[in-house]
Order: sequence, then C-alpha cells, then structure tokens
Amino acid sequence: MLEDVRFILRDVLGEPETYDDVLEGAAAVCRELLAPLNAPGDAEGATFVDGAVRTPAGFREAYATFARDGWVGLTAAEEHGGAALPHVVGSVLEELTCAANLSFATYAGLTAGAYRAVLLHGDAEQQARLLPPLAAGTSTGTMCLTEAHAGTDLGLIRTRAEPTGDGRYRLSGQKIFITAGEHDLTEDILHLVLARLPDAPAGTRGISLFAVPRRLEDGSRNGVTCVSLEHKMGIRASATCTLAFEGALGELVGEPHRGMRAMFTMMNAARLGVGIQGLALAQAAYERAADYARTRLQGRSLAGPARPDLEADPIIVHPDIRRTLLRIRSQVEGGRALALWVSAELDRSEHGDAAAADLVALMTPIVKAGLTDLGSEATNLALGVFGGHGYIRETGMEQLVRDARIAQIYEGTNAVQALDLVGRKLPEGAGRLLRRFFHPSAALLSEAVGDERIADVAIPAQAALERLRRATLWLADHAPADPEEAGAAATEYLRLFHLTAVGVLWVRMARAAVERDDAFGAVKLQTAQFYAARILPETAGLVRQVTAGKATLMAPDAASF
Amino acid sequence: MLEDVRFILRDVLGEPETYDDVLEGAAAVCRELLAPLNAPGDAEGATFVDGAVRTPAGFREAYATFARDGWVGLTAAEEHGGAALPHVVGSVLEELTCAANLSFATYAGLTAGAYRAVLLHGDAEQQARLLPPLAAGTSTGTMCLTEAHAGTDLGLIRTRAEPTGDGRYRLSGQKIFITAGEHDLTEDILHLVLARLPDAPAGTRGISLFAVPRRLEDGSRNGVTCVSLEHKMGIRASATCTLAFEGALGELVGEPHRGMRAMFTMMNAARLGVGIQGLALAQAAYERAADYARTRLQGRSLAGPARPDLEADPIIVHPDIRRTLLRIRSQVEGGRALALWVSAELDRSEHGDAAAADLVALMTPIVKAGLTDLGSEATNLALGVFGGHGYIRETGMEQLVRDARIAQIYEGTNAVQALDLVGRKLPEGAGRLLRRFFHPSAALLSEAVGDERIADVAIPAQAALERLRRATLWLADHAPADPEEAGAAATEYLRLFHLTAVGVLWVRMARAAVERDDAFGAVKLQTAQFYAARILPETAGLVRQVTAGKATLMAPDAASF
Repeated sequence: MLEDVRFILRDVLGEPETYDDVLEGAAAVCRELLAPLNAPGDAEGATFVDGAVRTPAGFREAYATFARDGWVGLTAAEEHGGAALPHVVGSVLEELTCAANLSFATYAGLTAGAYRAVLLHGDAEQQARLLPPLAAGTSTGTMCLTEAHAGTDLGLIRTRAEPTGDGRYRLSGQKIFITAGEHDLTEDILHLVLARLPDAPAGTRGISLFAVPRRLEDGSRNGVTCVSLEHKMGIRASATCTLAFEGALGELVGEPHRGMRAMFTMMNAARLGVGIQGLALAQAAYERAADYARTRLQGRSLAGPARPDLEADPIIVHPDIRRTLLRIRSQVEGGRALALWVSAELDRSEHGDAAAADLVALMTPIVKAGLTDLGSEATNLALGVFGGHGYIRETGMEQLVRDARIAQIYEGTNAVQALDLVGRKLPEGAGRLLRRFFHPSAALLSEAVGDERIADVAIPAQAALERLRRATLWLADHAPADPEEAGAAATEYLRLFHLTAVGVLWVRMARAAVERDDAFGAVKLQTAQFYAARILPETAGLVRQVTAGKATLMAPDAASF
Repeated sequence: MLEDVRFILRDVLGEPETYDDVLEGAAAVCRELLAPLNAPGDAEGATFVDGAVRTPAGFREAYATFARDGWVGLTAAEEHGGAALPHVVGSVLEELTCAANLSFATYAGLTAGAYRAVLLHGDAEQQARLLPPLAAGTSTGTMCLTEAHAGTDLGLIRTRAEPTGDGRYRLSGQKIFITAGEHDLTEDILHLVLARLPDAPAGTRGISLFAVPRRLEDGSRNGVTCVSLEHKMGIRASATCTLAFEGALGELVGEPHRGMRAMFTMMNAARLGVGIQGLALAQAAYERAADYARTRLQGRSLAGPARPDLEADPIIVHPDIRRTLLRIRSQVEGGRALALWVSAELDRSEHGDAAAADLVALMTPIVKAGLTDLGSEATNLALGVFGGHGYIRETGMEQLVRDARIAQIYEGTNAVQALDLVGRKLPEGAGRLLRRFFHPSAALLSEAVGDERIADVAIPAQAALERLRRATLWLADHAPADPEEAGAAATEYLRLFHLTAVGVLWVRMARAAVERDDAFGAVKLQTAQFYAARILPETAGLVRQVTAGKATLMAPDAASF
C-alpha cells in the first residue's frame, strides 16, 4: 500500500516529497501496536462500570505510546508541539491507523477535528492554552452535537449555556452518540459543544460553540458525566457515550450564535477523515481476501486444471473471484488517489489557493459518501470471498463489515452529504466549484483519448464525464425551481460524480503508469482497464436515475408507506 | 403483507385459492410466538455446554407449539401426517417465520429439505419410516455437506461410509457449518450426509447420500457428536455445528454414487426457501423503517413545512427517504411476486407440467441470489433510515443486517448460483429453459406497451428485456468456446435477469392493479412506476458489464493481487 501511496504522491500528483520514512514508521506502529488489539478490542468492547468508561485491554498503553511518538500531533502546528506535516501525510496515517484498528483511531480522529475548530475559530489565548494538550495527545477532543431528538436537524438542539458573569458559561443538557465522550486513555478530554445562549434565536442561527473540559483548572471534575454507553453493531471498542451536562463550565469559541459555521469547519475536515475510514477498511478487507484467494484450494479452473499437482486450484483462478477482488482494488486504489488529491488541495487551500479551496468544498461530500459506501461494499464483497468462513468471527471479516457500516452514518449521513453536494456545492458561485472540476477533467480526457496506450481507459471515462455533465445540466434546469428535484436526485448524482471523478483519476494514473514502463506500472494499467470496463458502465444507469425526476418518489401518500 | 399475498395469488397469478385462514393463523403465530424471541435469541445465542447444544430461552417451548400446531408439516403429504398444502402456501409461511425470527426458522427450514430428499430418493419403506417424524416436527433434518477443505467443491469430501454387512453403513469423518446439527428442540435429528463408499470413484461422481439418525432404534446415541459451535456474525440463535461422525450407523438413500443428484434435489427446494429468507428480512426491515420515517421528526420539507404545528416534519417528507423506502418496497413486492410465481410453477411441476419444471429450474438460482442480495441491500438501507439509531442494537435493525448476510452464502454462494444459471441452466436443451421465460414475457410486454394506463411501466420493462436478450446472445456467442467468458459475466448477468424478471412481474401487477380500480391498486401502480423509473435503469449498466468480456479480469497475474 505504501508503494501505491508513493506512486500517487510522486507520479500522479507531482508532490515534491513522499515522506517515505515517516510513513514507513507509521505503518510499523499500526502493524505492531494497533492491529493486534483490533479483534480483542471488538470482543471485549468499551465497558461502563460505576460511571467510568474502560477501554479494552491494551488500548491505554497503546494510546500513550502512539501519542508519545508524535502520531496524534503529526499535522498540528509546531508552535503547539506538532510536527506540522501536510494533510496528505495525515491522510495516509489516517488510512493506516483505521485499517489496523478503526475503534482505536476514533479516539485520535476527533482530536484532529477539535484541534482544527479551535485553531480556526478560537482566539489567540485559547489556541495557546487549548491546542498543545490536543497536539500532545494528553487530551482528546469530542464533537457534542447530537441530542435524542436532534440528529441531522441540529436546529432542534436544546442544550443551554448561561453566562456566569466572569466571561464563562454553564452548560446544561444531554448529548447522545458522543464518540470518545468518556474514556481512560488521557488525563483530560476537551468537549466541543453546541448549545444555545439565553438570547438565542430559534433554529440553526441560534447555536453557539463552547469548549468544555472534563477537568477544571483546579483538577476537580467539571459537570459532565457519562450516563451510558451504546451497544453498537461495530466499533465496539470505541466508547459511544450519552453525556449529561449539568452546569458544566465552558468557554465560548468564536462568535455567539455562529457555532454552526465553526462546527462545519470541524466537520469538513472530519468528513475527509471519515471517507478515509471507509477506504481503510476496504483496503484491509482486500488484503485478507486476496491472500485467501491465492491460498484456498477449491474447484478447478474453467480453462482446465491450473495446479494439477494439488487436489484443487487456488480460487484466484475463478473469473468471479477475480472480478470481486478487482472491484475492490480498482475502487480502493482510485479512492486513495481521490483522497490524496483532495488532501493535497486542502494543503494548497491553507496556503491561500482559492481554486484549491473550491475543489475541497466540492469534493468533500463526494469523498465522505463515496469512500464510506465503498467501505461497506468492499468489506461485504471480501467477506463473500471467504464463503461461510467469512461469516465466522474468527476470520475477522465480519468485524470489518460491522465496523465499516458506521462510517456511512456519522459526521452527516451519506444522504446528507448528497444534499450538501446538490443543494449547496453545485449552486455556489453559479457553478464556480463545479467548473474547477469539469474544465481540467475535460481537457485531460480530450488529450488522453488520443493516446492509444491509455485510450481504453480514457474513452469510458470521457463517456462518464459526459453523463455527469448531462445529469448536472438536468439538475441546473430543474432544481432551482423545485428543491425536491435536487433531493430526489441527490444520492444517485453523488455516486455518478464519485465514479466519474475516480475514473478521471484512473486516467491520470494510467498515464503515469505507462510512463513508468515497469512491472508496477503494468499492473496499475490493468487495474485501470478493469475500472473502465467493469465499474464505469454503472454511470449509464445512474444518469437515467438522476434524470427520472421526483414524480414517482413524491406521488405516494405518506400513509401508504 | 397478507393483503399483498392475496393480490399476487388471486389477481396476478390467478391461483384458485388464497388460503386466507391458514395464512392469518400463520401470521398470528409468527407475531405472537416467534417475533418476541428474536432479539433475546440473538443476545443469548445458541450455547455449547458439556457437549450439549442449548437453544436460547423460549425456543424449545415455541418449537413444540409450532410443530404441534402443524406448521412444520404444512406442505408434507397427508400419508406422512402433513397438511399437503401447496408450495405457494409454504412459501408464504416461510416468509412470515423468517421475518419474525430467522434463527428459529432455520431449525424448521432444513427439515423441509430433508423431507423432500427422502421423499424423492428414498424407497417406500424409508419414506414410511423416516418421513412422519419430520412432518410431525418431532425430528428435524440437516444437510451434512461441507467439510473444512470442501465447501463449494464437494468433489473433495473425505467422509467415508463402510458397509456393515447387514445393509447398513458406518460413517466416519467431520462436517462443518451444519445448521441445526445439534440442539435441544426435538427428540431426534435426521442427518442427511454426503460420504464416499469404499469403491467410490474420485470427485463428485463418487459421493453417496446417507440418512444418519441422532438416536438409534434402541434409544442409544448414534456415533455423531457436536464438537463445537461457530461464533457467527448473525443468526446467533441458530446452532451452526461441527459434527464428528465416528462409526455412526446410517442407511443409503437412493443409489450408490448418486448422492450429488439427490442432494441437488434437496438444495433446489432449499434455495427457493433461502431466497425467501432474504425477502423476509427485507420486508421486516421495510416495515420498521417505514414506521420510523412516518414518526421521526427531523428537518423540514424542501417544499416548505408540512407540519408547522410540530417542531419538525416527519422525515417521510424528504425525497431521499422516500426513494430509499421505495427502493426496498418495490423490490420486496416484486420479489414476493417472483417467489410466489416460482412456487406456483413448482406446484404445477409436481403435477407433471414439464414447462413449469423448466421455469423452476431456470429461476431457482435467480430467486436465491436475487432475493438474498435484496435482503442485504434492503436491511442496510433500512438501517440507514434510522441514522445513528440504526447502528445501535436496541432498535433491532443491525441484527437484521447481520442475519441477512448469511443467506447470500449458504445453500451455494450467490456466485455459485450465477454459475449455475450461465453454465447449466442457459445451455440446457439448447436454450429451452430460457425460451419458457422469454416468449411469454415478450408477448406480455408487446401488448402492455399499448395500454396507456401502464405504458410507463411496460416501456422500461421492454427495454430491460431487450438488454437481457442482448446479454444472452452475447453469452451464447462467447461462452460455448470459452467457459471463462460465462464465469466473468455470471454475477452481473444474474442480476440483469433478476431485475428484468421482476420488471416483467411488475407489468403483470400493474395490469392487475388498474383492473382493481381501488386504493390498493392505485398504490400498487405507483410502486410499479417507481420500479420502472428508478430500478430498471440499472440494467443499462449491467448489459455493458456483461458484454465487456473477461479480458480485464483474467489479465492480471495471480501474484499481482
């Protein structure tokens, strides 16, 4: 996988550096420290005893090592004690940690989001005080948004914040589904909490963001307690908490009533990370399924025995096993290129590149939904390669399936991502974001279809881009007058965009592959050809679904469902 | 759901009877007796203590009632104590029981397969002796096929059967993944076991079928013991056993070395049943998701507040929630029509109708794979309607997802079903089976496209049938010379066939719906229109995938995976 990262960073994206030493170090720590805790952590789960949350055996020691060695603060600023490495490196670390142990990664993952929220919205004093413990890994972050009656619709939240008179606030209310809301890994936890000030208007315009530490400066406990842990389908070693805020002391981050904006900053970075979670589990599932397919003996090749010396052939000879593995691999490698491309644009945007910022805004929902859908599809396909053995706990495949499912839900469900894409990102600046993607893609493909070495990849990609263009024009024609048309098309439009964007990246990768003229490049080109021949055709169905319109969805009476 | 069954049986299939009383009784017993044990059964699981298997609390009493009231023997012959009802009724019972409690249903489900194998391959004396306990539910059946190294490839099995000299045999070997291989529900278990006679040729032509009871006639235990239970992703209340046969006494069923043929009889009936398991979980998931969507308040309609009196609208107002629910419902109702149509053909085939037998043979892999894929897709989609609440155990949605996954694997993985379709069923009789489907379907659609009331359903169905025809011709051109071309196309071809066959049934249902001219018919027509507009377009991508050929699958070297 690291060879693939190097190929993407150097040969495809033209990044100046590939950070080989750092990434090899990260791969080693994930392999040696985190992966061995994954199955036992699932079996034991996070537990709740006498009001305290205990992480599974080994997590505490592993987290201490992970933080001490600087992995939590890898992309944090040097002034806060971080290593100040770019997001492309952070994204590879995210993939590696999640592939090894998704539950473990959730404790560190939200810390990065909390860091970013305070960095962009806190004042200088808050940054200097709150960020170093997050970068050092002595404190972890949370995002306290959801309440029992307010999930996707945050305008409904009821948690209140009363000014104390000394510039601070006391928060009261109950939050649910708080990842890493309480645990035994670190000295402190910094909760970032959405709540309403006394004079707040109703709805999302009356929500403010607060920083609420688990412990107060004098070492005593703040008024935040874990009430219960959820019993979940997967990520069972990740503590998902119901938190009661009972007069908890906190401080305002950013301006009053502007908390949603700050939270979106945090969520956008988190959404890229969650997309990578899906990618990571898909990669982990692929590796195991490919190993199994090369060694499991069962049946004979349809073309005649491949290994007559054995009692059966390895199942890798079967076309459908290969199709399954290539479905995963071609989407994983394409998805990795997508994630790293967007990460590189995020790095550029932080150096003031406005075009890059547009691309990040456009592609974030596509990365989040597209790659987490891939996570579920790929882990399920990989489980199937094992047949009945995949359904048994001991092979670990079913844990990957259970763990992968959450990524389609949290940080905004994939349906919410699709609405963000069609309702917010497409109309922005009269299509400005979209043009950042379309123009260079169209130019690339017009040139690539003339290169006979890669034309069999470029021609289907060009057809997909044309379908995406048609779907986009259809939306531009229908959605402004009727937002339900956008809502009815959103999920399939996002998938169409995702498959096409990955197709464009496969053309870039195919071009880089033929330039290498080596064994790695030859395999890469084969994978590109598979994607073009067997994945991109799905866009032919998707464009028809998008342009079918809302009529058949909206006609039935609510009572008829 | 029973109203839908009546519509399909009476209005669509023209069956002479709809068995309302029996089916309402079945629905009541499933609702009151089986459904309440589903979540507790998952939490407790089947357990293995001191060599004995214990089913979860309540299962034993429920099974006794279920058997006593005649549900196990519903389709068994009267001479064996059954009620001799047709397969269409058995299929509805299967859907109801699996929707209520899939784990429970697995204990009775294989009994039906064992009954059928002995009925068709045992001699008169065996039938008279072995079948009544199965029909009465005092004994359950198993299918002992798989060994650790022999799953899909049964030619590799090693279990041996030595003649004792008195017409019986002693079996030795180990079988894995034996559903209901040991339990505490009934006095006896009848194992149907594949094993090799001493003079058996290698491969599948040397396998014979044996009946091996758990208890011998004198009441002592036979030499069959449960060695361990599997820990599985789902159906945790179903005991999946490793069985050791150590000189177990058994009797030959059918001719020596012809066991595979007998086992296929059993598996074909079982495959229809497993398809219905997928359908059942999809239906169960739909009901819960639709209830949730009608009552969960979150956000506002994109067309303006639908319920300004409430703090938010029910999420059923959102186009993407409706799309999700209709994706499930249109495939479930279409899938039910498919399952009941094939069940009715099975009834006809047992009365000597050769054309019906051809249709059953053709459609069995399509029902099994198509409906179990639906089971996984639908339960996952329904979980998503609940957002984060779907990922939590207490809503029960994640159990449905975990339970549904096995149905794609057992009784022949869905990849095996696809190979059966393209490799065996298509070529049979130079396409005779296929013509049984194509000719009446094409005739129906030519007529329906001229009926303006249902043309918007019939036209997309006709386009899908044309795509299926093209894909079939492509296979007929390429597969005979190169079976790997069939293998490379199989999975997508089966899905194309499934979607098209359900599309044709939706045209039949739409026609029946407009004839009814009532509220039920109006909703049914709306669902047909959704299926035509939003599901059938997928066939446009599938035909391209099928005809893309094997090249991109077979090119990569095995070591490159």
